[in-house]
Amino acid sequence: MTETKRTTIVLFSGEYDKAMAAYIIANGAVAYDHEVTIFHTFWGLNALRKEEPVSVKKGFLEKMFGKMMPRGADKMGTSKMNFAGLGHKMIKHVVDKHNAMTLPQLIDLAKEQDIKMVACTMTMDLLGLQQEELIDDIEYAGVAAYLADAEEGNVNLFI
Amino acid sequence: MTETKRTTIVLFSGEYDKAMAAYIIANGAVAYDHEVTIFHTFWGLNALRKEEPVSVKKGFLEKMFGKMMPRGADKMGTSKMNFAGLGHKMIKHVVDKHNAMTLPQLIDLAKEQDIKMVACTMTMDLLGLQQEELIDDIEYAGVAAYLADAEEGNVNLFI
Amino acid sequence: MTETKRTTIVLFSGEYDKAMAAYIIANGAVAYDHEVTIFHTFWGLNALRKEEPVSVKKGFLEKMFGKMMPRGADKMGTSKMNFAGLGHKMIKHVVDKHNAMTLPQLIDLAKEQDIKMVACTMTMDLLGLQQEELIDDIEYAGVAAYLADAEEGNVNLFI
Repeated sequence: MTETKRTTIVLFSGEYDKAMAAYIIANGAVAYDHEVTIFHTFWGLNALRKEEPVSVKKGFLEKMFGKMMPRGADKMGTSKMNFAGLGHKMIKHVVDKHNAMTLPQLIDLAKEQDIKMVACTMTMDLLGLQQEELIDDIEYAGVAAYLADAEEGNVNLFI
Repeated sequence: MTETKRTTIVLFSGEYDKAMAAYIIANGAVAYDHEVTIFHTFWGLNALRKEEPVSVKKGFLEKMFGKMMPRGADKMGTSKMNFAGLGHKMIKHVVDKHNAMTLPQLIDLAKEQDIKMVACTMTMDLLGLQQEELIDDIEYAGVAAYLADAEEGNVNLFI
Repeated sequence: MTETKRTTIVLFSGEYDKAMAAYIIANGAVAYDHEVTIFHTFWGLNALRKEEPVSVKKGFLEKMFGKMMPRGADKMGTSKMNFAGLGHKMIKHVVDKHNAMTLPQLIDLAKEQDIKMVACTMTMDLLGLQQEELIDDIEYAGVAAYLADAEEGNVNLFI
């Protein structure tokens, strides 16, 4: 009898390249028959935002966060050589050129592969993000749920 | 018989939001009966600095590092949207508003919960930080001690 | 019979201080009889570049990446207080002063200690880096090989 292996990733970072790394490892781990959880917290939540603005009632500060943060995976900058979005364009260009997958494609694949995509409710609250603003078919949980998965994890990463 | 679970976190980063994430996970893991170690190295040491300046003898470069680095958790900037400290103010504001815990409160809680807070002696030496400049009741150790904890760890993260 | 322990590190970041932390932990883990793998991906690949330019045929974008990214460990900037390379100089200065090891020395030690240094072929392709441009005696592999090592790992870190 073989035990199911498990991979958990905390996606804290809001950069395109870091989120790409997270989703590449996550999708790869599914191919290795791992159960995979990506726990999106802080700026990593932006990868789950819908592209179009969603009308929800918010306080001033929450509105400001909402405007300043990238709306969805495709809008995220890179951690290196960003140059006002140039790094992002370069990365997307080379991804296309080499027939690799873009971040939105990697996220779609993760959904198809039943990766458990979780939004951290505590940081959603802090940043003023509401469920209506995030993509469908994800789960909502706190750090306790993350730890329950991670303590059984073979590969646990913070990205 | 159940074995004690263990969580270890290397806190390398010196940003308010990343340190918050580290201490939220650490305090959460204690609630799950984990033994928890936070190993502060490089810029993560700044979370352990006393707020008031401490008079210690230092070389020029060590003085410069000392002046340039934030003195304590409350002075740390954010990894995103820092805007000369604005991000930090916004985060603190929303933390207050949502009755969440600030970083200094999370650190106090960690102490109360007997989380093993370790300062990396090798990087203290590099950055010219002396024990008198760091908060009380922490431990001092090197990478070997970290590895001894981590190799038994269920959840090991680098933040 | 004791089982061999294993440490795996994904080195994603291209900063001098983060790479130092990765290599210090890696070399320390060898001293603890761990089998150690460092999987270099994205900007972490720059730690493996040869210092001298290597003449290889490339497209325009790949040439641009090649010019903009640091050529080798010794050229990498720091994640904090970089100030156009000043942070790097300060770190190197204090490393010398305290008889600690520089990043290139840590990388040499890693090789001597038979740490498995892997370059991620997928991101090499994206960034247009070719095997001729990287240092000798390293391995080339993809995310699957990383996961095969990591799922047996006691300490798995993403840096």
